[in-house]
Amino acid sequence: MNQRFPLVQIGLIRTPYKTSAPYQPIDNDAGDFRLVLDEKYAGGLTDLDTFRYIYVIYYVDRLTRGAVMMESPAWVADRKVGLFASRSPARPSPLGISVVRLKRIVGNEVHTSGLDVFDLTPLLDIKPYIKDLDSKQDANYGWIDDLPGNKQHLLLHIMGIPHDY
Amino acid sequence: MNQRFPLVQIGLIRTPYKTSAPYQPIDNDAGDFRLVLDEKYAGGLTDLDTFRYIYVIYYVDRLTRGAVMMESPAWVADRKVGLFASRSPARPSPLGISVVRLKRIVGNEVHTSGLDVFDLTPLLDIKPYIKDLDSKQDANYGWIDDLPGNKQHLLLHIMGIPHDY
Repeated sequence: MNQRFPLVQIGLIRTPYKTSAPYQPIDNDAGDFRLVLDEKYAGGLTDLDTFRYIYVIYYVDRLTRGAVMMESPAWVADRKVGLFASRSPARPSPLGISVVRLKRIVGNEVHTSGLDVFDLTPLLDIKPYIKDLDSKQDANYGWIDDLPGNKQHLLLHIMGIPHDY
Repeated sequence: MNQRFPLVQIGLIRTPYKTSAPYQPIDNDAGDFRLVLDEKYAGGLTDLDTFRYIYVIYYVDRLTRGAVMMESPAWVADRKVGLFASRSPARPSPLGISVVRLKRIVGNEVHTSGLDVFDLTPLLDIKPYIKDLDSKQDANYGWIDDLPGNKQHLLLHIMGIPHDY
């Protein structure tokens, strides 16, 4: 099957997370998050810094289990949801997509807001996040809306934002 | 390199586009756009219909050229931009990501708004598009803002919306 879908690694993602990572990116300025491109691809970064947000696409290379069709979100007790209705990293094709804020580009390195991946994760692609195309004003929360408890609290979990209650 | 990044096809994308496709998805109700999952993955669609928008991730399998680091967007004359600042399909890892509206799920088929891909494109993954996580209210247009001419007109091109002026 691999032969049909060749992928080329364009670089590495550097994060502070060596052994654990938040469930979703944290949009803040703390911490050192960088996309380090191989030199041969650095030219492709031209003009990228005109965008406020970018998509980071990577291969989830440190899974400890295979994909199951019904997932138990780590932050929700007693609820299973379909795998494709979840953001579980354990998927048939373990591709990760994160929307992050672009802070600056220095040579072959793109500095970003928080990224929810392990250090040295293989970087496959970067795409610009374009206002009308990717930002859907009427997007919703799906099944997360139906959960008991405080939605803002649940969203903190989903977004990986540290909190103390 | 392939061995390092195994991907599993979960189904096929059905669209009306046999020989040409718009540059980006058209968000309308016209046309038959469907994600047809292999039966073994149909269970993973549970709860997906609680989301208004979804990410569709696919392999761009009908490229006619390789990736170049400076791209000429098809709808802009006399301007080159870095590959990673463009949405060109010809990339080192030709993974496509489209945000589409979920219309309904019938068995193993997900009916969606317009998808900018060729018929029978290999489907790799589906993820829920979650309001706070993926919809960035302060996203911008990047280098598209700097182009001469009417931005709304250019955005029609980017979004693949048919127009007659």
